[in-house]
Amino acid sequence: MSTTTALASLGERGVVARIRERFSGSALPSQDLVVGIGDDAAVAVPARGALEILTTDGLVEGVHFDRRFSSLADVGYKALAVNVSDIAAMGGAPRLALLSLMLPEATTLDELDALLDGFTDMAAEARVRLAGGNVTRSTAGLIVDVSLLGAARPRRILTRGGARPGDVLYVTGSIGAGAAGLGWLRANAGGGAAQPDSGMAECVARYRRPSPRARIGAVAGRTRAASAAMDLSDGLADAVAQVAEQSGTGAIIDAAALPIHPAAADWFARNGLDPVRAALEGGDDYELLLTVSPRARGRLRTLQQQARGVPLTRIGEMTRDRAVRLRRDGYDETLPTGFTHF
Amino acid sequence: MSTTTALASLGERGVVARIRERFSGSALPSQDLVVGIGDDAAVAVPARGALEILTTDGLVEGVHFDRRFSSLADVGYKALAVNVSDIAAMGGAPRLALLSLMLPEATTLDELDALLDGFTDMAAEARVRLAGGNVTRSTAGLIVDVSLLGAARPRRILTRGGARPGDVLYVTGSIGAGAAGLGWLRANAGGGAAQPDSGMAECVARYRRPSPRARIGAVAGRTRAASAAMDLSDGLADAVAQVAEQSGTGAIIDAAALPIHPAAADWFARNGLDPVRAALEGGDDYELLLTVSPRARGRLRTLQQQARGVPLTRIGEMTRDRAVRLRRDGYDETLPTGFTHF
Repeated sequence: MSTTTALASLGERGVVARIRERFSGSALPSQDLVVGIGDDAAVAVPARGALEILTTDGLVEGVHFDRRFSSLADVGYKALAVNVSDIAAMGGAPRLALLSLMLPEATTLDELDALLDGFTDMAAEARVRLAGGNVTRSTAGLIVDVSLLGAARPRRILTRGGARPGDVLYVTGSIGAGAAGLGWLRANAGGGAAQPDSGMAECVARYRRPSPRARIGAVAGRTRAASAAMDLSDGLADAVAQVAEQSGTGAIIDAAALPIHPAAADWFARNGLDPVRAALEGGDDYELLLTVSPRARGRLRTLQQQARGVPLTRIGEMTRDRAVRLRRDGYDETLPTGFTHF
Repeated sequence: MSTTTALASLGERGVVARIRERFSGSALPSQDLVVGIGDDAAVAVPARGALEILTTDGLVEGVHFDRRFSSLADVGYKALAVNVSDIAAMGGAPRLALLSLMLPEATTLDELDALLDGFTDMAAEARVRLAGGNVTRSTAGLIVDVSLLGAARPRRILTRGGARPGDVLYVTGSIGAGAAGLGWLRANAGGGAAQPDSGMAECVARYRRPSPRARIGAVAGRTRAASAAMDLSDGLADAVAQVAEQSGTGAIIDAAALPIHPAAADWFARNGLDPVRAALEGGDDYELLLTVSPRARGRLRTLQQQARGVPLTRIGEMTRDRAVRLRRDGYDETLPTGFTHF
């Protein structure tokens, strides 16, 4: 069978068989999957003594991705990564995924394989097993919708509402890279010859294949190093506002402390944007915002030791006063609000 | 706020807030949902001593539904119903749903509310709690993708592969109604004045709002009355072929025994179709196919007593010989194969 065959000629069963075959030899942990792909539903043995964490997030062609900017392998990778990020933000560990594919009729086997390659890469990194899914035709673009089941121990959950005044705000990694990478891709969409320099190449890679902070989230939950957490899918400003609102506190962020990716800061400045605001507002950063109680300093050190080189940067503090502010050069500004998908 | 406001003006957060508000006062069982809608992910206490059953299925406008034939309330209802049917076919009980909505920009609050009304109706019937979800923009039609988590006791799972030669085949309810209802709607799409007679109205209702056999599936699993099960989402012929293949057996179906819905049989005949083949091939019947060991006759009676009036009809037998046949008027025919979505 030619790999450029349109899937329409394979039929739904053929597509499911292909997916099943791709995942059957997988080296992923079994996670006690009693029944996998190919029955009415999947069956799994629950993680012992754990709570269930459930999330769903999807990528829609023309809304969340553009084939000129991302390969289908990148799309498959990111569709799972954004869900892994949500589980990490609850302090849990991901376990089992359901993959719902809505495919344009012209989709080829090569394209399906690329998508599954990327998905498998992320699954292997995050130790996620594919439990099942659904394949159907799309009347428009490609849609990759993923649901993810994770586990966390009781009383080790990190909600958005657990922060207290005086807790210190930390962010993992760096911010602004996703938005800058997408900005560069948009600006260079026409000219195929343009090559990003090494800093921008990092931003583009971060946009295409974000690294969810699975380990940091799981350790922050398990060790109770954090009092609250949220991922930065809609930007840091949005995350701070949400955590403050749900915790019934305010927050103050120190602009000078923000770990803005240097190539992103450059890119924003060259495009006439304020790097601080652009990095705060930019979506597509799958970093974590964590709040840490002053009494948890010891646990924070343990977390930092286990972060495998990913920096945890102190960026501000939760306040009793319910305002959410950005302190810059001694003046307070209102924090810009985040990204919305409509 | 006007209910004809396009959701685009509400933003993603506004839409999520609306959904949360709609489900907050719900009388649905709590299912020990520790964290519901509005955080990075939902958190639930697992069902005690149970296995986890996971499934996902979605409805795509233009592929699985047409707004001329189904209201948005019907679409919301059916999107959950098809998932409940999958859990029932594993012998499990549904617990927690994730609702992933992809909405065209012009979607109004009224439309969203209608969709949620239908979803809530099915959730109440099947005792399912909405744990979380995702809302995003669609560049094409409306897409309602649902993931459902259920529970079943260990060694009480009904796979497709558990049947043995000599096991008797049973089907719940009646077949052909979904396909006939859709056929009638297609034929009468232009003339708004046409009204179905009472038999056809039943078929149309079955197409729009299928009744998944949640209770029968759960009892068949719990009591071990059945050795294998599958739902008829892709038609009875397809289900028999799948169960036979995965069980390593054949099957013989008695055409005269098939519980074809009378109005559907009529409709097929008037349209020049063979009612038996049309009913066997028709998708959209969310009945269950069950296989029952001759030694489980007592448990079958218990199941029938608990079926609340839904008939269980004996339609054939699993065979050692691996062929899958339809016996009609003393002759054997090959069983037609099922529906595919590509």
